[in-house]
Amino acid sequence: MKNTLSAAVILIGNELLSGSIQDKNLAHIAKKLEVRGIRIRETRIIPDIEDEIVNAVNHLREKFDYVFTTGGIGPTHDDITSDSIAAAFGVPNVIQHDVFEQIDKRLKEKGVPFTKAAQRMAHAPEGAQIIHTKHSIIPGYRKGNVFVMAGVPSIMRLMLEAVIEHLDTGFEIHNTAIHANVGEGEIAQALETIQNQHPDIDIGSYPQDKNSEFSDFKVIFMVKGTDLGEIDTACNKILSACHDGGHDAVLA
Amino acid sequence: MKNTLSAAVILIGNELLSGSIQDKNLAHIAKKLEVRGIRIRETRIIPDIEDEIVNAVNHLREKFDYVFTTGGIGPTHDDITSDSIAAAFGVPNVIQHDVFEQIDKRLKEKGVPFTKAAQRMAHAPEGAQIIHTKHSIIPGYRKGNVFVMAGVPSIMRLMLEAVIEHLDTGFEIHNTAIHANVGEGEIAQALETIQNQHPDIDIGSYPQDKNSEFSDFKVIFMVKGTDLGEIDTACNKILSACHDGGHDAVLA
Repeated sequence: MKNTLSAAVILIGNELLSGSIQDKNLAHIAKKLEVRGIRIRETRIIPDIEDEIVNAVNHLREKFDYVFTTGGIGPTHDDITSDSIAAAFGVPNVIQHDVFEQIDKRLKEKGVPFTKAAQRMAHAPEGAQIIHTKHSIIPGYRKGNVFVMAGVPSIMRLMLEAVIEHLDTGFEIHNTAIHANVGEGEIAQALETIQNQHPDIDIGSYPQDKNSEFSDFKVIFMVKGTDLGEIDTACNKILSACHDGGHDAVLA
Repeated sequence: MKNTLSAAVILIGNELLSGSIQDKNLAHIAKKLEVRGIRIRETRIIPDIEDEIVNAVNHLREKFDYVFTTGGIGPTHDDITSDSIAAAFGVPNVIQHDVFEQIDKRLKEKGVPFTKAAQRMAHAPEGAQIIHTKHSIIPGYRKGNVFVMAGVPSIMRLMLEAVIEHLDTGFEIHNTAIHANVGEGEIAQALETIQNQHPDIDIGSYPQDKNSEFSDFKVIFMVKGTDLGEIDTACNKILSACHDGGHDAVLA
């Protein structure tokens, strides 16, 4: 897709792999990035193991314009993201004095001890740029093209709002959806022809589950791109192909 | 974790990366595997691009006991999973005559043409073992230690039921959750000590979002392992550590 930047997301946490917790961050990040012309091209969900985090970060930061991580920046033994990001960059994980003071002040107000364990939250890899977050005392940070955020969705969202200000932007990616009552097999050839005519547009075809939100329709076609005129043209061709075959199809 | 097998999951589809569709398969697969002693150790979400699928499949099938893929086995231009799995194994993607006949028969009954595009669904990599699925005419299949399933959740679930019969099993993985009203920073040191005393048990600590299902509690501790006695011991230590500090904590 023309004039867009690329990104990878690394979701860190055993709980996501075991099905104990359902990720709620990826889709939110994707949507916030697409309006800024940044496309997520790969996501990895990995356990709280330093080698795994180091390998994923080092592979993906070479391959894509940006990498975003979520999870593992709290105070407990399984919160090893900052240690691992530091190891990936070959630098120590060091105390951030302004963050330390900020957390210390807040905990004193609440009468909660600032334990040695909790002080881990005031660390970040050497040379990281702390990205302060409105309404959260724990900040995210940037190291190179890697942005580190919390896993708890409400905190991650606050961090992302601040992180976004640090990103270059591409052309906004637009989506148009078509709902249709046609078997995929019957429309596949026409769809492929239209896709080949518009290589800068992404046409996806998603059969709908009987229990899904849009189960009145057999399939949703998703047309994505940066050029609204081209999206419009491709959508009209898809609608015509459906109607010509006697199938219902409407812009969503 | 002792006596368990390892697995990776590859979720294939642009729609998952763009946030258009929220994955509903990973957690279901994880839970079905854990009772059979198989742990998911990595998940990748990748686009409908052959090279990406080939690289992920070849990397992960070397590293883990099993690999499960979802998505990309329908009839449209973006359904390239079988071509890609075949390429990963260096074999052609060939027609499966019994599958072809099965689909052909069903479509004739419904009066729907069996288009050339739809015939892609009757292909699988040479040497694949077709895994027929109750209540679905499209089967999953196995090639080596890689199991290929649909992306639509209702169909994936049917396929998984059949796939599971093909897997070796480890010791069942059990989970116990503790809900507690304690700041993570206050309990982190005790938690780390307990984790170190029980290296075969996985202790996770998950702070709860204000809007979450369990927001009456600040944190959930998840204790996982194959030895129920050891889980029990670890849980009792966590409960004691919370209570000793004057914090509420209960088995969930």
